[in-house]
Amino acid sequence: MKYPKIPVARSIVALCEAKGIHHVVISPGSRNAPLTNGFAHNPTIHTYSVVDERCAAFVALGMAQQLKKPVAVVCTSGSALLNYYPAVAEAFYSDIPLVVISADRPVERIDIGDGQTIRQKNVFENHILYSANLHSELVLENEAIDKKLQQKQFESQKHNEREINLALNNAIEGKGPVHINVPFYEPLYDLVEDVEVNPIQILPEIKERTYSGNQLKAYADLWNKAKKKMIIIGVAQPNAVEQQFLDELANDDSVIVFTETTSNVHQPGFFTRIDTVIGPIEKDENKEEMFKALQPDILLTFGGMIVSKKVKAFLRNYQPKQHWHIDSKKAYNTFFCLNKHFETTPDSFFGNFLPLTEKIESDYSSFWQAIRSKRQVRHDEYMDAIPYSDLKAMQAIVPRMPENHILHLANSSTIRYAQLFKWKESLKIYCNRGTSGIDGSISTSVGAAIVGEEPVLMISGDLSFFYDSNALWNNYIPKNFRIIIMNNQGGGIFRILPGDKNSETFDTYFETVHQLNAKPVCELYGFEYAAANSSEEIEKELNGFFDASDKPKVLEIFTPRKVNDEVLLEYFSFMKD
Amino acid sequence: MKYPKIPVARSIVALCEAKGIHHVVISPGSRNAPLTNGFAHNPTIHTYSVVDERCAAFVALGMAQQLKKPVAVVCTSGSALLNYYPAVAEAFYSDIPLVVISADRPVERIDIGDGQTIRQKNVFENHILYSANLHSELVLENEAIDKKLQQKQFESQKHNEREINLALNNAIEGKGPVHINVPFYEPLYDLVEDVEVNPIQILPEIKERTYSGNQLKAYADLWNKAKKKMIIIGVAQPNAVEQQFLDELANDDSVIVFTETTSNVHQPGFFTRIDTVIGPIEKDENKEEMFKALQPDILLTFGGMIVSKKVKAFLRNYQPKQHWHIDSKKAYNTFFCLNKHFETTPDSFFGNFLPLTEKIESDYSSFWQAIRSKRQVRHDEYMDAIPYSDLKAMQAIVPRMPENHILHLANSSTIRYAQLFKWKESLKIYCNRGTSGIDGSISTSVGAAIVGEEPVLMISGDLSFFYDSNALWNNYIPKNFRIIIMNNQGGGIFRILPGDKNSETFDTYFETVHQLNAKPVCELYGFEYAAANSSEEIEKELNGFFDASDKPKVLEIFTPRKVNDEVLLEYFSFMKD
Repeated sequence: MKYPKIPVARSIVALCEAKGIHHVVISPGSRNAPLTNGFAHNPTIHTYSVVDERCAAFVALGMAQQLKKPVAVVCTSGSALLNYYPAVAEAFYSDIPLVVISADRPVERIDIGDGQTIRQKNVFENHILYSANLHSELVLENEAIDKKLQQKQFESQKHNEREINLALNNAIEGKGPVHINVPFYEPLYDLVEDVEVNPIQILPEIKERTYSGNQLKAYADLWNKAKKKMIIIGVAQPNAVEQQFLDELANDDSVIVFTETTSNVHQPGFFTRIDTVIGPIEKDENKEEMFKALQPDILLTFGGMIVSKKVKAFLRNYQPKQHWHIDSKKAYNTFFCLNKHFETTPDSFFGNFLPLTEKIESDYSSFWQAIRSKRQVRHDEYMDAIPYSDLKAMQAIVPRMPENHILHLANSSTIRYAQLFKWKESLKIYCNRGTSGIDGSISTSVGAAIVGEEPVLMISGDLSFFYDSNALWNNYIPKNFRIIIMNNQGGGIFRILPGDKNSETFDTYFETVHQLNAKPVCELYGFEYAAANSSEEIEKELNGFFDASDKPKVLEIFTPRKVNDEVLLEYFSFMKD
Repeated sequence: MKYPKIPVARSIVALCEAKGIHHVVISPGSRNAPLTNGFAHNPTIHTYSVVDERCAAFVALGMAQQLKKPVAVVCTSGSALLNYYPAVAEAFYSDIPLVVISADRPVERIDIGDGQTIRQKNVFENHILYSANLHSELVLENEAIDKKLQQKQFESQKHNEREINLALNNAIEGKGPVHINVPFYEPLYDLVEDVEVNPIQILPEIKERTYSGNQLKAYADLWNKAKKKMIIIGVAQPNAVEQQFLDELANDDSVIVFTETTSNVHQPGFFTRIDTVIGPIEKDENKEEMFKALQPDILLTFGGMIVSKKVKAFLRNYQPKQHWHIDSKKAYNTFFCLNKHFETTPDSFFGNFLPLTEKIESDYSSFWQAIRSKRQVRHDEYMDAIPYSDLKAMQAIVPRMPENHILHLANSSTIRYAQLFKWKESLKIYCNRGTSGIDGSISTSVGAAIVGEEPVLMISGDLSFFYDSNALWNNYIPKNFRIIIMNNQGGGIFRILPGDKNSETFDTYFETVHQLNAKPVCELYGFEYAAANSSEEIEKELNGFFDASDKPKVLEIFTPRKVNDEVLLEYFSFMKD
């Protein structure tokens, strides 16, 4: 087997392999040749070539999210590395183990005018779990020449091996992005046969914390006295919590559970569409009274980011007496009233906590369940009544989505419309909510499609699609990959916000109205393309859309931009009655 | 006239205007609404909407480079900002005043789980001249309510005004990127009529340093004794140095002047194509002797980055006794032998230095001029002899390039091929050599085309083009904008480097071979498209290519990837004879 001649490159590959990194996304370059050769020649590692580093990092992110394991990205020196930053920030806030490995020039070549050379050390400082700044290793022609040099080399090598271990361990333990920066001397392309390395191995620490009944008793006492307990589950991986705990919570009259499309939990008693509950209250004349009725005594949260702006605004104004968050890693003070961070997994918490709790009499759940049922009827009435629009188009998609798929959603309008519907429970639903960026959604879904266990549908707005259309520029996209573009000729989200709609400034700088369509992009990258301009056409085009095909497919749905916002804004008023 | 209601947004706009910023590139967002509205409603400022922030920043960079004045980019909060980083680094190393203005959430909303919220403070720390982290300003309903609050607001406002001044002054004085981060409270969209602001004005300092005859005497003494003096001019703006100084230097037998395609200086005695002199010596059997003959006693450099790797390698091995660099801002120790940084402009330096110098007898110039003439003959012979290839295609372009154009070159192969030819002197030639990245070359040329005084031709490789094809996604590209894509089906540069050519690993991860063509991209963005597959077709297609047209145009030149590298590698061997 062939290995790169430079030892540190061999150490990086060996340690990645040892720590279970089996997927590496590589962007072309010369300085990173030792890494590229090392990974590409390793038979246990799948390597992928993606030219645009911004996409490459999001592709790796999408893979790591599916695999629940670190995935590495490798790039050359210079600005290449900076293009990873949007995905690094997303990984940081979404707790995804993304391992960035950048080649660099030796330190004495920085800031002396060499090409593709920047200050790479700690460049992601604001959003990284660990930055390993490796020393460069000269590969000497005659290693026996100088004992002092030998010793220096040996120490550098051992320093590097430790740093690589710590970086990778941080990605695994802390579930987040890390950066390994490795300077290389030339020659970069030399390979050697059968020269393995045995770098020092430092095992990641398994940081499990559990709470005893003793520790939980005070909280159980509060719980058992409270008549209104609200649980909100943020972004979560499928099967993140055992169903028995969810069922038990649903079965308590004093508890209501709000979930989101991206929570990936399912229980018939849960409120799956937060905005359909809260949105109409905002329009209600008894708003104050209704919100007070909804205001919980105890708020218990787990999972990642919460998508619904409405529930955030509500709870910031109508604060619970207690807010507890369960997460092994971090707790955000989202509602400015966090009392307790349980630093453990939801399963561990509930396993010890629920036995201490008692069901108490309350009409909290039944009151809101009744409202939920009423809202469902109104929702259906509204959907029947509205003209063709984004909302109507989404309604046409939801029931036609096949079972057992991965559904990736872009940010802004797409995720917000998706939140208003009930999706099939066999779907695994994802959205880049760490930074909620316009960038990288398509690439992330491509990464999911490459390694995912189920086929992927990506639903995206037009701006998110064009922004990240380089996502399709690679040779790994499976034929069953599907994209639905909701093309409303601009940033439809801005029409929902309080801007000065239909003014020239608004059209140009906020909504950024355009006349593009995705057909040429599909032609460029070999996707099948179809367009739809009405609910009927959507139904027709979706008939067979998910069937096996020779190429991946795009369905572009055009909606009337000046109708969309009116239909959505009216939705919540209609729902309140 | 309409102004944003939030005072700090008015201050930013007013100070930008006061300091001569008349072009602002805006990406869509809600958090930045006060800035967008402020800039868009100001009649002295041209605003542009570019959705993809990575492109937006490079477009602004291309504008600032043409205007030789700061240009601002404005984005919303979150990962949007991170997409500016590649252009920020390019601006940092290319000394271009790029003003980044990012909207942010108020500090208490960071890291609590809000959308589009990251740690923006000092996020470009490694590559920025100044980071102004502004305080957020609440716009109170009733400002008279509380005296203490009023005082706090007043102090925040004055702090902000000073920081904005300092950031903008740094961009102007230091010719580089700066970052103004401004947190905003909601409401974001409110406008007020006729409420101007009069923020504090701090004028930029004009930092002019001159060297007296007294200070220069010791250097003049060295100069007057040295028989071999080499001048290298790096990347420079057209007319950066007065012609009389250049003529005087050309007229000295002990001086040879190396310039690059991107130096934008012209003097018949100068060596315009460094690689055609040094490349063949590397292949010469008397290499050692020739390099010693070329080795200067004194090396004087000015301008920015040096493109030629060959001259860097030569001078690092054959160091001059003295290396002096002239630049008001910085001096890189490019050859590891820098003795003196003259912190002034070339004009100021030469104005005081040349009167102290004497012409001395030397055959340095005449010896190398003779070689240069011989090389020119060989170059022409080679060009006549070679088959169709990248090199041959470039030869077909050079004479057909019209006078008085701006020529933008992409990195890697494009700039290296361009360096081998003599271009018309009326051209202004640019290339992003700050970081020499694959990213943003097209966007930079678009920025140049929007504000430049002459029409722009961009020459790009296929990878640079597809990487940055979002550059064409905006409504400001003038009809006379032209792109020539040299499509060699991958990263042709890698075939010149010492990789293991034609192996599967090489094709996939280094050369990244593909079969794409730019026609669908042209269709998407409304460009005229033509293709060429031979020198004859290039000649035919270039006939009329630069004439007035209804749409901007792309000419895509396909070259045989497996021939290109052989033709180039053989070039230097042929030239040596």
